[in-house]
Amino acid sequence: MRVKLTIAYDGTNYSGWQIQSNGITVQDVLNQALKNLLGEDVRTIGASRTDAGVHALGNVAVFDTTSQIPAEKFSYALNARLPEDIRIQRSEEVPTDFHPRFTTTIKTYEYQILNRTFADPTRRLYSFHWYGKLDLEAMQQAALYLVGEHDFKSFATESPDVTTTVRTINSIRLWKENDMIHIRVTGNGFLYHMVRIIAGTLLEVGKANYRPEQIQKILTAKDRRAAGPTARAQGLTLVEICYPDWE
Amino acid sequence: MRVKLTIAYDGTNYSGWQIQSNGITVQDVLNQALKNLLGEDVRTIGASRTDAGVHALGNVAVFDTTSQIPAEKFSYALNARLPEDIRIQRSEEVPTDFHPRFTTTIKTYEYQILNRTFADPTRRLYSFHWYGKLDLEAMQQAALYLVGEHDFKSFATESPDVTTTVRTINSIRLWKENDMIHIRVTGNGFLYHMVRIIAGTLLEVGKANYRPEQIQKILTAKDRRAAGPTARAQGLTLVEICYPDWE
Repeated sequence: MRVKLTIAYDGTNYSGWQIQSNGITVQDVLNQALKNLLGEDVRTIGASRTDAGVHALGNVAVFDTTSQIPAEKFSYALNARLPEDIRIQRSEEVPTDFHPRFTTTIKTYEYQILNRTFADPTRRLYSFHWYGKLDLEAMQQAALYLVGEHDFKSFATESPDVTTTVRTINSIRLWKENDMIHIRVTGNGFLYHMVRIIAGTLLEVGKANYRPEQIQKILTAKDRRAAGPTARAQGLTLVEICYPDWE
Repeated sequence: MRVKLTIAYDGTNYSGWQIQSNGITVQDVLNQALKNLLGEDVRTIGASRTDAGVHALGNVAVFDTTSQIPAEKFSYALNARLPEDIRIQRSEEVPTDFHPRFTTTIKTYEYQILNRTFADPTRRLYSFHWYGKLDLEAMQQAALYLVGEHDFKSFATESPDVTTTVRTINSIRLWKENDMIHIRVTGNGFLYHMVRIIAGTLLEVGKANYRPEQIQKILTAKDRRAAGPTARAQGLTLVEICYPDWE
C-alpha cells in the first residue's frame, strides 16, 4: 500500500526537507524513523522541498510498504520514534498512483513579520522581526498585483529544473494581529524562494521604499534584480497542501 | 542612578533567572552584558526568580550605575550584547529606593496548554501539549474558587524563606483560541511553583479527574498532596509585573 503522511516540523535545526550530502534534513530523520519501525529501507517522496530553517504544519510525503500496520496507525508509531521537532499529524492510505508532487496541489504558505520596537525571544524562531513602521495598507494594496496567473520570474531564484515561471496565486491575505503581521499566500505551485521574495518585496513596500504600483513593474521586468530581497527563512511556514483531484 | 530593565527571554536554554552554582542563568548572561558595556561588575536585583525553562515577556531587574549613558539607551546597548533569546524591552531611570521585589507588585503569568491530537513542533517550547479532551467550562468554574485572598499552601512547593502562604489572586482568565488554552493569572505575589500547580490542578479538572468544587477542598486541606501535579515549566510565561505605587 501507499501511505500518505502529513508532517509538521520546526525547521530551525534542519538543512531543509530534502536529503542532501551535507547537513541533516527532515527527510533523513523521517526515513530513519521508518527504518526503525519497519526494519527495512523505505524511500519517501516529499511534496515540498522546504529550505533550511523553514517550518511546516502540513508538508506531505508518501511511501510504499507491505507492512501490516494499518495506515492510520503510522502517525502514532512514527511519532514515538521521531524527535520532538517533527510530528506526523495524520497518516492514511492513498491509491498507489498518488504522487505528492506530480499532482495538482493547492499550497498555503504563511510568512510572519513581528513588528515591534524590540524582538520577542519567544517568537524569534518563527518570525522575522522588523522594528520600524510598516504601512500595512500599502502592503495589502501591493499584494493584490500578485494575485492571479503571472510570470513570477522576478520573484524566483533561478533553478535548473524549472520549465516555466508562470504560476497562479489564488489569494494573498495580509493582516495584523497585535504586533504580528501575517502574509498568507495560496497558489498552485511556487518557484524557488518565491514566497520569501514576495515577503521581502512587500516589506520594502511597507517601509515605503516601493510604492504598491511598483509590483506591476517588477512582474513585467521578469528579472530577479527588480524585486526586493529574499526574506529570512525562519519567518516562513508551509501551512497546508491540498490535493483537489483526490479529496 | 538606578536603572530598571524590563526583560523578555526564552527560558528554554537557561537554568532559570537567578544566579546559581550550576547551569547558566538569564541573570548571569545579563550581568555579563552589563560588564561588557560598562567595564565594571554590576549587581542586578531581579523581581521574579523564574524556574528553569520558564519564559518571560516582562521580568524586571534593576542596577545602580554612575555611567553617563542615558537610562533609556541601555535597552539598545544591552540588546547589542545579548544573545537572541534575551531581549531588553525597556530601560528607564527609577528612584534609588525602588526595589523590584520589596515593593507592591501585580504580576501576570500565563500558562498555555496546546489541546490537539498531535503536538505542534513549532509551539512545543512554549506550551504543554495535551492530546485528550478537556472540559473548558469545568476548568473555568474551578478557577473561580482560586480568585481572592486564600492560603495557597496546597498550591506551593515548600520553600524555606516563606513566612506566609496567604496570597491574593486578582483574576484568572481561562480561554481557548483555536487549539490553545490560555490560563492567565494575575495576583500580588506567587508562591514557589504556584502557577504551575494551579495549571496542573486545572488540567485534572479538565480531564474530569476532579470536579470543580474539589478546588475548595484542596484549598482547605493546606497540603501540597491534595492538589494536582506541577505542570511542566515550558508552558509558563511571566507576562508582566506592575508596580502600582510607582506608576
